[in-house]
Order: sequence, then structure tokens, then C-alpha cells
Amino acid sequence: MRLALYIVRAPSAHVRELAQALEDVIDKIRLCSRCQHLTEQDPCSLCTDARRDQRMVCVVALPSDLLAIQRAGGYRGSYHVLHGLLSPLEGIGPEDLRVDELLKRIQPGEVDEVILATSANVEGEATAMYLARLLKPLGVKVTRIASGLPVGGELEYADQATISRALDHRAEI
Amino acid sequence: MRLALYIVRAPSAHVRELAQALEDVIDKIRLCSRCQHLTEQDPCSLCTDARRDQRMVCVVALPSDLLAIQRAGGYRGSYHVLHGLLSPLEGIGPEDLRVDELLKRIQPGEVDEVILATSANVEGEATAMYLARLLKPLGVKVTRIASGLPVGGELEYADQATISRALDHRAEI
Repeated sequence: MRLALYIVRAPSAHVRELAQALEDVIDKIRLCSRCQHLTEQDPCSLCTDARRDQRMVCVVALPSDLLAIQRAGGYRGSYHVLHGLLSPLEGIGPEDLRVDELLKRIQPGEVDEVILATSANVEGEATAMYLARLLKPLGVKVTRIASGLPVGGELEYADQATISRALDHRAEI
Repeated sequence: MRLALYIVRAPSAHVRELAQALEDVIDKIRLCSRCQHLTEQDPCSLCTDARRDQRMVCVVALPSDLLAIQRAGGYRGSYHVLHGLLSPLEGIGPEDLRVDELLKRIQPGEVDEVILATSANVEGEATAMYLARLLKPLGVKVTRIASGLPVGGELEYADQATISRALDHRAEI
């Protein structure tokens, strides 16, 4: 309602620009044939960036997750976007995700490590376990992002599942 | 103010009970000479519990942290309460914490592992690093609780420091 009323009130030039932008999305934005991220050119700028380590693949559920990792900085490898997570309750199976495209990328000697960076919720964990079972026989190192106390988090206020996880996944220092 | 007005209004028997409870705290609650947790009898029930693995010591900042881990369940070792964290800005140094009591407990062959379960904030990390430097020469395994995405947490909404930490501390699966 707010958007509709704004559009009625707005200068027509603005509305025309918005309409054009929407058409551009349809015409120009596609998925990168390699990493499946949103892009205007194929392959995308992340896949063709020579400074990125293309032998490391970080698997995420959605383009928004990829952007979150990019915002965090520090990661210098390539990505693979699944466009969803396994969810039997919602009827989302492996064939609905970009799993085949991922497996095709994992050629022996071309990829050293696949990082499963799906969220730490039920669907994210299930998808990570499923992918690990498919990927490990391909002879690639498969890793999972860490789960535990968030940085800056106080033990006293952490939920019980996070405290248990943080203790279970403790590491020698 | 609310408490004061309640006390004026309340039945005098209730107020007398409260006064007695406050005196009991002073008289009866002390620190366990071994783990430094609050207790009525020394050593405390956690330290004398034969079903707990006394060869494993989980180091926490405050009694409230110990209670949080107990609520989470799953941990079956003993504890050590520091009663604070190192904080140069607030003038809290090692001599203000129960560090000597911890070191005295770590006799060769008596303790297998010390888990540093301080919070994932600046003071918690600094204290963990400080204790690790003191403990490792004693020939004991020193571990740190995991830090990363909280359980159930979505990658997209995690802060940048947590995303970076989760990637850095990824583990092979």
C-alpha cells in the first residue's frame, strides 16, 4: 500500500526509471553458469577474478548469504550458490537445488576444498551433511563453518544448544 | 523504590523471612575451596560428585556461567570459577581472580584437560589466552570452547566478526 501510494504521488520520470529497472532485471540478470550467483555477465566477476583462489569453493544457500560473507571480508576463494536448502517439510529436495552444478565443478585436481557455509539451523545442517556424503567420495577436502558462541557473545546469555555445541566443538589451543 | 514500598506494605512475617534469608547468605554461603563456586558445604557438591569426571576442569568467569552450562546439560566434568575476567581498563589483573587456586589444582597426572569456557568477548578471549600460557607448560591439554554461528542462527543475519570466525574455525567433516 505504501509503495503503491508513493508511486501514484511520485514524479512520472521516477516511476518510469523504476519500470525500466524492473525490465532490466528480467533482461540482464541471469545466473552464473559456474557458481550460480546473480550476474550480468557469464561467468560472473567472482569466477573470473584471478586473485580469488578458484581451488576453494564456499557453498551457500542464497545470494544474500554470499553477499554477507563478502561483506565480512577475509574470504578469498570462489563460491557456489545452491538457491535453497533441503527441506522435506516444504517438499524441497536435492533436484530443486543447484547440486548437480556443484558436483560437476568438483573435478579431481581442480578443487582442493569445499567449505559448507550453510546456516547453523536444521535445514542448513541437513544440507551440509547431505552434500558432505556426496562430495567426500570425490576425493576433495570437505569442511563445515564453525558453530558456537557468537563473537562478543556472553556465555551466561547464550541458549542451551549453543553452549552445548561450543563445549562439544572445543579445540586445543 | 518498588522493593522498599513492597517491604513497607508486606506482612511482617514475610519481611522477617527475607531478613533471615539475607543473614543466612552471609553466614552460610562461602566459596568452595577447590572450584571456588558458591556453596554451603566445603568442598561443594559438584567437587564431591563421584559421577563427575574430576580429571576435566571447565574454567568459567562467574557462578552464573557455571549455572548456564549446568542448565545446558551434557557436561560431566568439574568446574573452576575465576570470579571475573582480566580487564586492564577496569584495573582487574590476575591477582584479582582465582588463578592461583586453579594452578594449584593442576597437578601432573591429576587433571587431563582444562576447558577455557570464558565468553567470546574481548575480556573472555584475553583471559583464555593468558591462562593457556600458564597452563600449557604444566603438561595439561588446554582447549577453548568453539566460537561461530549460534545454533539455529542464519548466516545472512550474523555479524561480520562471527562470519569471519566461523569461516576461520571451519572443521573437516
